[in-house]
Amino acid sequence: MRFLGYFRSSSAYRCRIAFNLKGLEYDFESVHLKSGKHKSADFAAVNPQKLVPALITDDGQELYQSLAIIEWLDETYGGARLIPADKDLRAQVRAFAQVIACEIHPLQNLRVLQYLRSDLGLGEDAVNAWLARWLGDGLQACEDILAKRGDATAYCFGDEPGLADICLVPQVFSAERFNVDISHLTRINAIYEQCQSNPAFAAAHPKAQPDFEA
Amino acid sequence: MRFLGYFRSSSAYRCRIAFNLKGLEYDFESVHLKSGKHKSADFAAVNPQKLVPALITDDGQELYQSLAIIEWLDETYGGARLIPADKDLRAQVRAFAQVIACEIHPLQNLRVLQYLRSDLGLGEDAVNAWLARWLGDGLQACEDILAKRGDATAYCFGDEPGLADICLVPQVFSAERFNVDISHLTRINAIYEQCQSNPAFAAAHPKAQPDFEA
Repeated sequence: MRFLGYFRSSSAYRCRIAFNLKGLEYDFESVHLKSGKHKSADFAAVNPQKLVPALITDDGQELYQSLAIIEWLDETYGGARLIPADKDLRAQVRAFAQVIACEIHPLQNLRVLQYLRSDLGLGEDAVNAWLARWLGDGLQACEDILAKRGDATAYCFGDEPGLADICLVPQVFSAERFNVDISHLTRINAIYEQCQSNPAFAAAHPKAQPDFEA
Repeated sequence: MRFLGYFRSSSAYRCRIAFNLKGLEYDFESVHLKSGKHKSADFAAVNPQKLVPALITDDGQELYQSLAIIEWLDETYGGARLIPADKDLRAQVRAFAQVIACEIHPLQNLRVLQYLRSDLGLGEDAVNAWLARWLGDGLQACEDILAKRGDATAYCFGDEPGLADICLVPQVFSAERFNVDISHLTRINAIYEQCQSNPAFAAAHPKAQPDFEA
């Protein structure tokens, strides 16, 4: 498999955790977002949406969108199960992942922040208020969803990591990066710490990637 | 089943199309967004994220996030299949749905537009430019993805409607509502017209809902 990503992309980070949890090897190709490499004709031929990540499978399929890639990996390969076998629990896990992928992350990705700064001319205080609002509200919703489930577990939906944790960890990492204070979200912080001590998550961290830039 | 939605919500519109395509009956409860009913304690007890739609199943489960609800419906009930049985095609359909649900719709929903107008003080021209950018780029990506698939089909991924069309139609409806010009996206417009002539889509239209307001 060839994986086209970027160290800082939350969506690529999700896929890296999934590869690691399932014990899958892949060839990595960095798509340098800051220099606009994702807008090149070569990359658009793989993913017409021109966003990382993309996956070229061993039989030549071109996949994109991190949640679709992760479901495909889970349906195609053995190893740890990332999405529950039980359809009712699966709906809860997918919904939690979608709270992050559909409601939080889209409001903080690179192209939106560039629009806020360049097209709308917002200063850093206004950009930080935007980030605090959407990351803060969104991660509060995640905390409330977990609280509604009942007693705390090591990972979001039980004692083993899965799709919910795969989405949560890069989102908390972004909150740290953007200095959004979520210190009061005790359950999320406990799960985040748990994940940091798991080698599959640690190896997927942006700082551990070959294309990392400080 | 009890379905909690709102006539204008794109995510609720998706679910309504899914119910209709599968021939499922449901009791509808309107959650009036403009008067903030989604922020009530009653609704938050069902969906801590405080966003429509939500589904209360016959056995009392509380589900939310439209894509998770639709996958659950497809896995639980017979009738038309909304998500392909083939895992490779399924990955393509999910990715297309996620382009809309994770990259277009989040940037145009009510709370974001309220933030642009109230918190950032943007005038209507700036709000319209925002909408034109994200809906325009996003639907262009959808057109390019369909073009890459090869010859045109009646619906996005073949001769029968499914999850991709379920997501596309409310997004095109939003583009119309916000006066975003997508007249050059010929394939999307042809699929949209095809869907309008399908009774399952027509009955799900916002104007056909009991809580519709002009």
